[in-house]
Amino acid sequence: MGTRIVDKSIVSASLVNASTPSRAQQVQSFLQQNNLRAWIAWRPDELLMLSGYFPYWGASLLLYFAEAEPILFVPQLEPRDHIPAGLRVQNYPWGDLKCADPYSVLVSAIGNELAKAGIKAERVGMNPGVSRTSLPIQAAEQIPIPENFAEKLSALAAKRDAQCRTAFADLYLRKTPDELEAIRLANQVANIGLQAFFDNLHPGIAEAEVAAAVESVIYRQIGRDAIFHSRAWAMVQSGPNSADAGRFNRSTGRRLENGDLVLIELATCVNGYWSDLTRTAGVGSPKPAVAPILDVVRDAQQAAIDGVRPGVSGAHVDALARDKIAAQGLAPFFTHHTGHHVGFRYHDPGFIIAPGESANLEPGMVITIEPGVYVPERGGGARIEDNVLVTESGHEVLSRIAANGQ
Amino acid sequence: MGTRIVDKSIVSASLVNASTPSRAQQVQSFLQQNNLRAWIAWRPDELLMLSGYFPYWGASLLLYFAEAEPILFVPQLEPRDHIPAGLRVQNYPWGDLKCADPYSVLVSAIGNELAKAGIKAERVGMNPGVSRTSLPIQAAEQIPIPENFAEKLSALAAKRDAQCRTAFADLYLRKTPDELEAIRLANQVANIGLQAFFDNLHPGIAEAEVAAAVESVIYRQIGRDAIFHSRAWAMVQSGPNSADAGRFNRSTGRRLENGDLVLIELATCVNGYWSDLTRTAGVGSPKPAVAPILDVVRDAQQAAIDGVRPGVSGAHVDALARDKIAAQGLAPFFTHHTGHHVGFRYHDPGFIIAPGESANLEPGMVITIEPGVYVPERGGGARIEDNVLVTESGHEVLSRIAANGQ
Repeated sequence: MGTRIVDKSIVSASLVNASTPSRAQQVQSFLQQNNLRAWIAWRPDELLMLSGYFPYWGASLLLYFAEAEPILFVPQLEPRDHIPAGLRVQNYPWGDLKCADPYSVLVSAIGNELAKAGIKAERVGMNPGVSRTSLPIQAAEQIPIPENFAEKLSALAAKRDAQCRTAFADLYLRKTPDELEAIRLANQVANIGLQAFFDNLHPGIAEAEVAAAVESVIYRQIGRDAIFHSRAWAMVQSGPNSADAGRFNRSTGRRLENGDLVLIELATCVNGYWSDLTRTAGVGSPKPAVAPILDVVRDAQQAAIDGVRPGVSGAHVDALARDKIAAQGLAPFFTHHTGHHVGFRYHDPGFIIAPGESANLEPGMVITIEPGVYVPERGGGARIEDNVLVTESGHEVLSRIAANGQ
Repeated sequence: MGTRIVDKSIVSASLVNASTPSRAQQVQSFLQQNNLRAWIAWRPDELLMLSGYFPYWGASLLLYFAEAEPILFVPQLEPRDHIPAGLRVQNYPWGDLKCADPYSVLVSAIGNELAKAGIKAERVGMNPGVSRTSLPIQAAEQIPIPENFAEKLSALAAKRDAQCRTAFADLYLRKTPDELEAIRLANQVANIGLQAFFDNLHPGIAEAEVAAAVESVIYRQIGRDAIFHSRAWAMVQSGPNSADAGRFNRSTGRRLENGDLVLIELATCVNGYWSDLTRTAGVGSPKPAVAPILDVVRDAQQAAIDGVRPGVSGAHVDALARDKIAAQGLAPFFTHHTGHHVGFRYHDPGFIIAPGESANLEPGMVITIEPGVYVPERGGGARIEDNVLVTESGHEVLSRIAANGQ
């Protein structure tokens, strides 16, 4: 495993994304089209996308200008050693026992910078909420930005309409070569975790013990190959529990038995970039009642992956998987979408790969392909999920690296 | 370790909290004093405190009535097997591919229930934000409640003023015997993690490897003794890195060396209840430059713990630790507060144990005591943190269980 992670070749990523504009170009177009001169970013994934900076506390804020270099405001307690070079950085007194209201100090500082640049509130945009966004490095509680922070900023950033927020969300869709390199690394690390999953599939081990082994090996990658943050959420469901995996994923104390299907849902964050994978495997040979479930999911997933290329719609790719499952009479047991965008978050915003979705794939997009079939009365369920890059000519699966990964 | 966790005796908790009103009594007083007939809870720690229910997705909502049993609204995808008996439960179509806006369905359902009970919006309260609240079981991204959800509820729950929110936060302060039992269990599990920390302190191991071992053994407790959720965030800092621990906690790839101080910050969530611990130990004997730092922190922490009893102020307890550190000329290196409330969250709301804090301790409160000294020029820092219950006559340390725990 040690050498596999050091795969920094981005030749293919560069080639396949020749047509993807740089991140700065994409953001400039967004600002121009929405008549904005600045954007205030404070959600961890927005910070990462706009500046390359992944926050520690989740209380950092980026003031991004159309006509000047961005300014990053960080708590005085923030570690400094992974702030990208070239960013203008200002401290604010979050964590200072003597300061009762550090956020007011921050809002004043932002106001000063906007005033200096002569930018009025109606030309400054922001997203007011943090729903479903990425986690900062310190993720043991919800992000510490206070309830009234968005309100406090409303005098400075007035452009918050739904149309503008939707246009901003479109920025997540097309990843640049540097971003793809980071997402590749997240998938390489995730595959070290998947290897631990396959290595631990033996009768008698508890689901939570398998999941703990996976998370552990992923955390241990910190310090290797410029990895300063590596954390996973592994959820393992075995036997009858695998039939729940279309509704929720968690690990219990159930011990694996021969013939079980075992499913792992694995969310991995490396340096702020995300991989979202699922594998299903048997403990030994799957029981006859469940073996066909795994087979059809494998076929359906491969059919959908094979169809990924620029210009095809979300509905088209979804149907490739859904039809295979329907052909086996299992349509009612595939209860969710086939995929979503991924990379800056566990679930990136944007159109989904689902029935009725007319939006088309474009080069540089990274989507999950994750059909699943869950049949309680047969005592099992299966899902297989990969992260797939749309290239100029077709696709590349970023997540199939483990020796016996399926 | 196996038997230690099965310690369900709550005799002492029951005795020491004879004066703490039941949770239902506390909530009824709050509602009466604030002229409320209902409260809408959606933050995971609010749900837990008001109903004993710890949510999976973080998209559950509790409608708590002054004059009727509460109603729990859960996504149709929510697991059902840890919903407490006796709660009235309603599904809403979150996760249904065919429902474009499940939250509108939810808001309508809540509106119907309030209308049936004849309750007007000005007598319904809620907290609009999720800043720093607890995480649901599925914690790999921020809580999925959408940005406009609090807004959508504003026609139903109009009472959101700061005075009312502050009064609600006071409900976190005094834990009932059942809650204390759950917090004890979280501390017992955390101590299994601390044991792994001490067992791994040898030269050559990386900080992240030590932290991964701690998190892993805590995750593995799922399935034992009614534990359905057990997750830790362990952060290990060694040698010079330990001097950063007053500003932030994280693990790097640095390998431990003989004579290092090594600090672990450990947040542990078991079934929704939290323990927040810190230990510092040497790899072998600490180097002469840093050994006195650990000694003074031990003395300061013990002095503060010894002073915990009903009727003393946060400032008083803080001074007990701070004065010990100042007496060694190290006052400038103790840069944070001495403690905070803990149990429903990694950091419960409420007054802190810090200079100037005049609020007094009462029986049933659980606070951290965590003085620290961080001296970059000496190449080390130390903090020791325990979770301490205020009893009728003094205190009880809930978190000292590990065989060689310090």
